[in-house]
Amino acid sequence: MKVKVSRKAHFNAAHRLYRPDWSFEKNNAVFGKCNNPNFHGHNYELVVSATGEIDPVTGFVIDIKVLKDLIKSEVEEAFDHKNLNVEVSEFKELNPTAENIAVVIWNKLRPHIAADKELEVTLYETPRNFVTYSGD
Amino acid sequence: MKVKVSRKAHFNAAHRLYRPDWSFEKNNAVFGKCNNPNFHGHNYELVVSATGEIDPVTGFVIDIKVLKDLIKSEVEEAFDHKNLNVEVSEFKELNPTAENIAVVIWNKLRPHIAADKELEVTLYETPRNFVTYSGD
Amino acid sequence: MKVKVSRKAHFNAAHRLYRPDWSFEKNNAVFGKCNNPNFHGHNYELVVSATGEIDPVTGFVIDIKVLKDLIKSEVEEAFDHKNLNVEVSEFKELNPTAENIAVVIWNKLRPHIAADKELEVTLYETPRNFVTYSGD
Amino acid sequence: MKVKVSRKAHFNAAHRLYRPDWSFEKNNAVFGKCNNPNFHGHNYELVVSATGEIDPVTGFVIDIKVLKDLIKSEVEEAFDHKNLNVEVSEFKELNPTAENIAVVIWNKLRPHIAADKELEVTLYETPRNFVTYSGD
Amino acid sequence: MKVKVSRKAHFNAAHRLYRPDWSFEKNNAVFGKCNNPNFHGHNYELVVSATGEIDPVTGFVIDIKVLKDLIKSEVEEAFDHKNLNVEVSEFKELNPTAENIAVVIWNKLRPHIAADKELEVTLYETPRNFVTYSGD
Amino acid sequence: MKVKVSRKAHFNAAHRLYRPDWSFEKNNAVFGKCNNPNFHGHNYELVVSATGEIDPVTGFVIDIKVLKDLIKSEVEEAFDHKNLNVEVSEFKELNPTAENIAVVIWNKLRPHIAADKELEVTLYETPRNFVTYSGD
Repeated sequence: MKVKVSRKAHFNAAHRLYRPDWSFEKNNAVFGKCNNPNFHGHNYELVVSATGEIDPVTGFVIDIKVLKDLIKSEVEEAFDHKNLNVEVSEFKELNPTAENIAVVIWNKLRPHIAADKELEVTLYETPRNFVTYSGD
Repeated sequence: MKVKVSRKAHFNAAHRLYRPDWSFEKNNAVFGKCNNPNFHGHNYELVVSATGEIDPVTGFVIDIKVLKDLIKSEVEEAFDHKNLNVEVSEFKELNPTAENIAVVIWNKLRPHIAADKELEVTLYETPRNFVTYSGD
Repeated sequence: MKVKVSRKAHFNAAHRLYRPDWSFEKNNAVFGKCNNPNFHGHNYELVVSATGEIDPVTGFVIDIKVLKDLIKSEVEEAFDHKNLNVEVSEFKELNPTAENIAVVIWNKLRPHIAADKELEVTLYETPRNFVTYSGD
Repeated sequence: MKVKVSRKAHFNAAHRLYRPDWSFEKNNAVFGKCNNPNFHGHNYELVVSATGEIDPVTGFVIDIKVLKDLIKSEVEEAFDHKNLNVEVSEFKELNPTAENIAVVIWNKLRPHIAADKELEVTLYETPRNFVTYSGD
Repeated sequence: MKVKVSRKAHFNAAHRLYRPDWSFEKNNAVFGKCNNPNFHGHNYELVVSATGEIDPVTGFVIDIKVLKDLIKSEVEEAFDHKNLNVEVSEFKELNPTAENIAVVIWNKLRPHIAADKELEVTLYETPRNFVTYSGD
Repeated sequence: MKVKVSRKAHFNAAHRLYRPDWSFEKNNAVFGKCNNPNFHGHNYELVVSATGEIDPVTGFVIDIKVLKDLIKSEVEEAFDHKNLNVEVSEFKELNPTAENIAVVIWNKLRPHIAADKELEVTLYETPRNFVTYSGD
């Protein structure tokens, strides 16, 4: 019996969407208000899901406290109250779009989740804009 | 790297569930209170998702502002503050159940989304009743 | 010790905002899309609050099951899946704005709540538009 | 046209996570605060989804009122305001983790949903912890 | 300039509503399913609000981190994953209705909030049932 | 009949909490992670409420479309996707705490709301931290 276990977490951060190899005008045309050079920010809501067989001994697919602590150490401590462009090494040369942030989070978590479990990350940039990445 | 990008939107409308070729009694037996000939209504919440490869140049699967404007022009302007049965041509001969509304929205959006992206529509008729259609 | 006890409920309905003694043009100028003669609709969320002393015997200000049943009999059965303009007598000559609906609900509930308790009604017409009436 | 139709429901219950064949210390090490022998509790939110073809006659995949009544008779009446460990037979020898509760609910509902429809159950133990089971 | 500052927190617990000096039948008549002798439970959501003047030096009415830590030490550590009737001394002889729990929380927090600030507690027993106490 | 009419809006922004006349260490001691010199950010949710008599002609206390447009022109256009410290003149010498932002928004809106109506502003910095200001 395969069950998907999900944990919701939260962090807030500043970011700017732009490419340094483009002119300001071109960045504005593509990224609009998100290109503000003084940054803007979001309360990111994050859902991390691990899918696998229920352990018949514990009744757990994964101990959700372990998942919670993993999100805290790998994501919240790295991103919360940070400027993603300036302070988070993964975005030094990668545009911190919601899509790219989700992929970065997935890559950070994947080594810590047992290989027989599938991993999925959903990231809400706002309550109305969100993305999902499953490693495909 | 394939990511699913979702945008949440909103419209409200009146509707009535019934078949004109059935008696009022038969419509009542099948559609209950939803068969009220004077109509009732809902705040519909709509989530539209496009799944595809991240463009390595922009970091976007799809510009969510483009998706937002597309939902506005194709769905909100056509359905918001409308009587679905009386004023929306797609429901002239199609019962506006949540299932059928979701299919109609999907069909309206599909031509405007690049063919290499998958499209999914989730429609909340109420916070407790919702449907999802992916074109299958 | 005075405590405010609140119960959230739900109904959906169709309505139209207009004055029959105004021209269609004037109604449009004032009520915009809400003047659609074919009606539109909402999922109304309703919060009813009674404030009073805690009964030291039961620990209740009011039995919330009683409050729930009262909202059901007085509001949900009268308004749910109805056309407010056409089918609800209170709006035969009263424009069913959120403000007026809240006042009507308050007036319907007030006789059923003990006189030593204050009554407040909050009505969400949409998740972003809501009104509160306390009988003042 | 296959559509997934979802209904959200609610029940609250007490439970305790532990294995009677383990020592209290071992149960504490694995289940932490959830091993409280005096029980703790949750407001469980439940989403039940049935996926199948739209019936061209009614426009329904499944009558959501039927689905609502089925959840009420099979799940709410069995679990609501109950102590899962003590009063629900399925958990007499099965640890009531969110994973196991979701599987039990799926097994209770499956015989009542037409065989050509897929069934999925999502159970929120808290707003931040939830699980999904599809019968795989 | 007086501002009300609010912090939302969470705990879950088991409880039973009854009076030991009443018969089981009388408790059932008054408390219904909540009188289950095996207990049931809830995810309680708690909003604690302090109202006072903005400190012109910091721009804070109260440091919300201090408020968060206070709720944690006084409420969450005392109530979370507990059986309120059996394990929380305040409810040894007090029926743990939402009203009474809110008053107990208010009394526990009041000594730790500066006397020139007003304190208010809102407790959600479920998303649809909640109470507010302000010390009046 | 006095009714409180509320409209919910949204903006996102970057900010930093600090006093330029304090050392970095002192700012860190008081403002913690919020003192990040590279900024962080939030999705601010804003509720603006006007309380007054129902106009018997329209059934409105205030046309909520007017209120929506006012919030857009006075708040969203000034704050959305901005760095509050760097780009919003009101915070050039005022620490952008939630308390101070709420007061600034209230002061910006007050001249545009009829004098016989009370005005209240609630600002959510995160879903768990929020403040309310009524001009007192």
